[in-house]
Amino acid sequence: MSRIYERVALIGLGLIAGSMARAMQCHGLAGEIVGTARSQETRDTARELGFCDRVTETAAEAVRGADLVVLAVPVGAMGALAREIAPHLAPGATLTDVGSVKGHVVESVGPHVPEGVHFIPAHPMAGTEHSGPESGFAELFENRWCLLVPGDNPDPDALARLRALWQAMGANVEEMEVAHHDLVCAVTSHAPHLIAYTMVGVADDLDRVSDSEVIKFSAAGFRDFTRIAASDPTMWRDVFLTNKDATLEILGRFTEELFALQRAIRTGDGDYLFDYFTRTRAIRRGIIEAGQDTAAPDFGRVPASSGQKAG
Amino acid sequence: MSRIYERVALIGLGLIAGSMARAMQCHGLAGEIVGTARSQETRDTARELGFCDRVTETAAEAVRGADLVVLAVPVGAMGALAREIAPHLAPGATLTDVGSVKGHVVESVGPHVPEGVHFIPAHPMAGTEHSGPESGFAELFENRWCLLVPGDNPDPDALARLRALWQAMGANVEEMEVAHHDLVCAVTSHAPHLIAYTMVGVADDLDRVSDSEVIKFSAAGFRDFTRIAASDPTMWRDVFLTNKDATLEILGRFTEELFALQRAIRTGDGDYLFDYFTRTRAIRRGIIEAGQDTAAPDFGRVPASSGQKAG
Repeated sequence: MSRIYERVALIGLGLIAGSMARAMQCHGLAGEIVGTARSQETRDTARELGFCDRVTETAAEAVRGADLVVLAVPVGAMGALAREIAPHLAPGATLTDVGSVKGHVVESVGPHVPEGVHFIPAHPMAGTEHSGPESGFAELFENRWCLLVPGDNPDPDALARLRALWQAMGANVEEMEVAHHDLVCAVTSHAPHLIAYTMVGVADDLDRVSDSEVIKFSAAGFRDFTRIAASDPTMWRDVFLTNKDATLEILGRFTEELFALQRAIRTGDGDYLFDYFTRTRAIRRGIIEAGQDTAAPDFGRVPASSGQKAG
Repeated sequence: MSRIYERVALIGLGLIAGSMARAMQCHGLAGEIVGTARSQETRDTARELGFCDRVTETAAEAVRGADLVVLAVPVGAMGALAREIAPHLAPGATLTDVGSVKGHVVESVGPHVPEGVHFIPAHPMAGTEHSGPESGFAELFENRWCLLVPGDNPDPDALARLRALWQAMGANVEEMEVAHHDLVCAVTSHAPHLIAYTMVGVADDLDRVSDSEVIKFSAAGFRDFTRIAASDPTMWRDVFLTNKDATLEILGRFTEELFALQRAIRTGDGDYLFDYFTRTRAIRRGIIEAGQDTAAPDFGRVPASSGQKAG
């Protein structure tokens, strides 16, 4: 594929930026990839791994002369970072981010964007439970969605280029309005994460069932919650603090439904439970048909081809 | 491996019995495997698939002369089934089950067990979101746990043979007391399933976010809930109705914790959230170290070796 940007600056070198760098390298999408991170250790690791062409000590240095600047830090750190780099942004550059909450990013970054710089917030909906510069991989975005939140009056060329970049990294791209984005994410991501964290916390806290029992017998369902409850604590703290209203709204709905199901259990209303459990199967089928999960039933097992003992 | 039972009767031919039959065939653990199911369609499918040596029309026929009889039907159906087969059980036979709730099975099956038949309830903690006779596979129990609930005075030989069968099918075996079993399962399995069903139900119900949006963007976390929320509705209805007290106790704890986290979000208590999210990571590590899940980050993707496009 051909080059889309001459110089891309990645600020924050965790899972997402690390995966973007690897994907851009693979497909030859950037003339030069410059990266930086606040921690010396992260910068050192990135240098060793070599997924950036150059790693700079400061964000100001990284963005100099870049035609694309990507803010890839926790949502709560975006505003201060934008203020820091604003004077150093090249005229005509595109400024984007990869944060999971768009309302807060627009509010906190927007006011710092200089005249002549195109600010187009983005959110690649992809990730794993791992974090840090060593966790990225070029295929992370393949067949995942990247939501662009360009606002009312985006520069058409800047928007088209950013869209082309995400598509070239394998993502499906869709545009969305800010508030709707934050509600959609509250449902598909933020509330599920909080619920998973809660269930894992409850299991960890019980006196009458030991942690070692929980761990041993986790394949019975609990295990599915632990993957997302192992996600980066800083990132998730910021998500909940900055997407407060939408998350609390969905959690309110969740509690209401949970109480209705609890009541059905208490009163022995088997029909209510059966109908509820039948309805939820359809959504799973939709997800598999949309290629967002596999139908392979043996999740949590090493695939037979790579080492499982023969039956 | 050598034969452990001369004739095993499997009643109910779903995921668990189908997997047991295949595992016993693989390892030569039974002289003859006889199966039956209430539905004609299931019996026909089982005959076509050939994982039983013989499929009978009735449970009474199936158990005749069997030295092991396995009740593999939903928990709510166990009592009536036990009454039906009791007069046909061979003296000295072992009667077991594979239900997820043991208190109810002991109460509803126990009174029907004839003198001279050894009743040893069991619970293989393994499964997938698929159900029916076509969904079983011989490796389902490998490195999973099977809990035996033998009660106070089990026959030592009968217990040793049943334990040997489960071990030969690849399971780790542990004995547990009835009430503790039902509490452990409420934490590791029943509450997580109900919570997953609830979250999927909430997402399905929202007016302002469409089902197609939920499906498209599910990889952001929601997807992890949908696998277990696609499990068999009849089985799970019975689990909640028969393990009512323990499930409601754990759900009560869950709601309490969820409210504390919601309050931290509302009041902006980032430290509380950060500490909570850090603590839950440790449990995930324990699960991976115990071999109950893989650390592979790309859950939901086809493994690279079997078809993913190169980066």
